[in-house]
Formats: sequence, C-alpha cells, structure tokens
Amino acid sequence: MATPVYDGAARSPQRGRPRDASRDDALRQAALEVMADVGYRALTMDAVAARARAGKATIYRRWESKLDLVIDTCTQLAQRNLTEPDTGSLGGDLREFLSTFAGFLSGPIGKAAQALVGELPHEPELATAFRDTFLIAQRDVLRGILDRAAERGELKPDAPRGTVVELAGAALIYRLMLTGEALDGAFVDRMVDQVLLPLVGKGQ
Amino acid sequence: MATPVYDGAARSPQRGRPRDASRDDALRQAALEVMADVGYRALTMDAVAARARAGKATIYRRWESKLDLVIDTCTQLAQRNLTEPDTGSLGGDLREFLSTFAGFLSGPIGKAAQALVGELPHEPELATAFRDTFLIAQRDVLRGILDRAAERGELKPDAPRGTVVELAGAALIYRLMLTGEALDGAFVDRMVDQVLLPLVGKGQ
Repeated sequence: MATPVYDGAARSPQRGRPRDASRDDALRQAALEVMADVGYRALTMDAVAARARAGKATIYRRWESKLDLVIDTCTQLAQRNLTEPDTGSLGGDLREFLSTFAGFLSGPIGKAAQALVGELPHEPELATAFRDTFLIAQRDVLRGILDRAAERGELKPDAPRGTVVELAGAALIYRLMLTGEALDGAFVDRMVDQVLLPLVGKGQ
Repeated sequence: MATPVYDGAARSPQRGRPRDASRDDALRQAALEVMADVGYRALTMDAVAARARAGKATIYRRWESKLDLVIDTCTQLAQRNLTEPDTGSLGGDLREFLSTFAGFLSGPIGKAAQALVGELPHEPELATAFRDTFLIAQRDVLRGILDRAAERGELKPDAPRGTVVELAGAALIYRLMLTGEALDGAFVDRMVDQVLLPLVGKGQ
C-alpha cells in the first residue's frame, strides 16, 4: 500500500520557478535545528530564516505555514531515513531497519522528534499530520518486511504482525523519550532475538 | 528491592506543624491540572496557587520549588495508581496491572504525563527525578509480577524478563504519546495474549 511519503514525489507541488532542492534542504535542516532547540510551539519562521541565513519571504515561498514546513521536514526525513531493507531474511531485515531507525533517532533528529511529540497533545493538526506521514511511513516499512518474510515462508501462520509492527516502534520511542537508555546494537539485537523473531518467526 | 516510591513514606519529610494531607492532595491535583494545560515549563507556583485557591506561601511551605512539587505529585500518583496486583496467575496479574495503568494514563494524568515527557529533554533534573520515581515504580511492579510467577513455576527458564518489563511500559506510552490509539481492554488483551505470555510464559 503506497503512502504519500513513499511515492517518490516531494510533498509540495512544484509551481512557478524551479525549486532549488539543496536550498530547500538547508531550510529544512534549519527548521530541524530550531525545533530541537526550542520545540515546535516556540519555533518561528523568523528563527528558521535567521538560522538558514535566508529571508523570511524565501521560506514563505516554499511553505505556507510553520505547520507545512515542519511536516514537510518530517516527511523528507522519513523518506530518506526509513528505507526498506532487503537482506533476504526476516532477522536481517529487522536488524537493519531497527539499527537505521535507532541511529536516526540517536542524532539531532531524535531531539527534534522529542520536542515535536511533546507538543502533539496541544497541536491537533500537527498530531494528525505527524501520524499520517512519519508513523505511517515507519509502519509501512515494517509491514513490508513482514510481508516479504511471509512470502519466503518465514512467518508462523498466526504471527501477530500488527502487534509486532507496533512494538518495534514503541520500544525505540520509549527509550528515546522516557528512559534515555541507549539505542545501540545490543538493544537492537535484544529486540530482534528476544522479542520480534520469537513472536512471528517460524520454528523459534 | 524497595524504592523510595514504595516505602510508604511521603517524599517530603514532615517538619514543623503537622501537614494537612487532604490540603496537600488538593495542591497536587491543582499542579497536575496546570501541567496538563500548559506543560511543565510554563507551570508557575502562582498558577498552581490560583487553581487551588491557596496562597503561594502555602505551597512554598510544602514544596521548595516547582521541580519538588511536580516530582512529589508524580511520586504520589505512581504510589496510588501503580499498586501490585496479586491474582494468583501471571496472566491475571499482567492483565490487571496493564488495565490499571492504561486507565490511569487515559485520564487527566495521562495528559499531564505527556506534557511532562515532552519537556524531559530540556529539563535534565526533571528527567532524572521522573526516571527515579515514576519509571522505576512501574518497572518494580512488573518485576514483582514476574518474580512471583517464577516462584509459582509459571515462567520459561530463559524468559527475557528485563525485555518484557520494558516492552509493557513502552507499548502503553507509545499509544498514549504517539499514535493516539485507545488504551482499552482489547489492547491490553492483545499485549498479554500475543506478546507478554508467549515471551515469558511456560508452555505457550
């Protein structure tokens, strides 16, 4: 099932003069840094413009609002960082996906994500957009991994796929946001070997 | 292993004139409501005093700082809401604990918890205190459930207890903070029957 995040097209339609993709990236990077520093609520287009040494009008030509900028930034990040692994085995795919996701959350993106998630309860539009892009993208990758494993005959017939998809994301976010424990290789191995493979893999 | 949260003593030592426990509760309740509305960073002792129709001096007689008030509030809530079930079976204990915890997070406490967690990255003292009270309290209850199950011979010999303790908390917090999906009975049953019992229970 294709999602807007994975259809390969940028979210904002191209119109008017051609867009400079590297300039857009610099602006998104600035938005990410401002969000990591001050959170979504306190983020302003002025602060993003100042960080990127750009004019505010430049930003508004690309994104209609702060919400639009932040959502587009999340979407692009998800698109680039949550690619679907294809190692040929369920264990390999899960390990690669979780390692990539953990690495991605351990850096500055994780800090911005924390700031964003803390504000979801007070920002219903942001919450909806965040769920429709970032969360669905992550679930789709995991579903794809399980679907391919099923085709290869690696899954138990009654494997609780939906639950496993949910747990994999939950375990990472919990460490990132609550416990502060490391999102390292040992953690990924433990999740794959003690939880995910035993729950869905055949002959575990 | 006893923790400060479960030793039955209030966190703040009693000194000077005897404290009015119901008054303290009203102040903690006010702190919780203010936190749910505006978050930790924007919470002020003035706002808590106004909400509780109390003087600011009354609050400062009980808690030295905003951090002290918020941590004491979390500690008391954990102490009252995270009690250790004892149904006589692993499945029963897990179901009861998760249902209670889910109910507790679905109400106003969950909203305050979301506001708090979103600010942990910017508030290292709060983060440490939150982990030392609330998170440890929750883990201790789950560890107690697994320890009693082991004594009754209900666990696999190689049951990944630490991982299961982590996952149970993670699954609830993920729904609360990220996906917004219901923390209902169906979810609790799915966690217990598809994940927790299969991972640690004997003969699953």
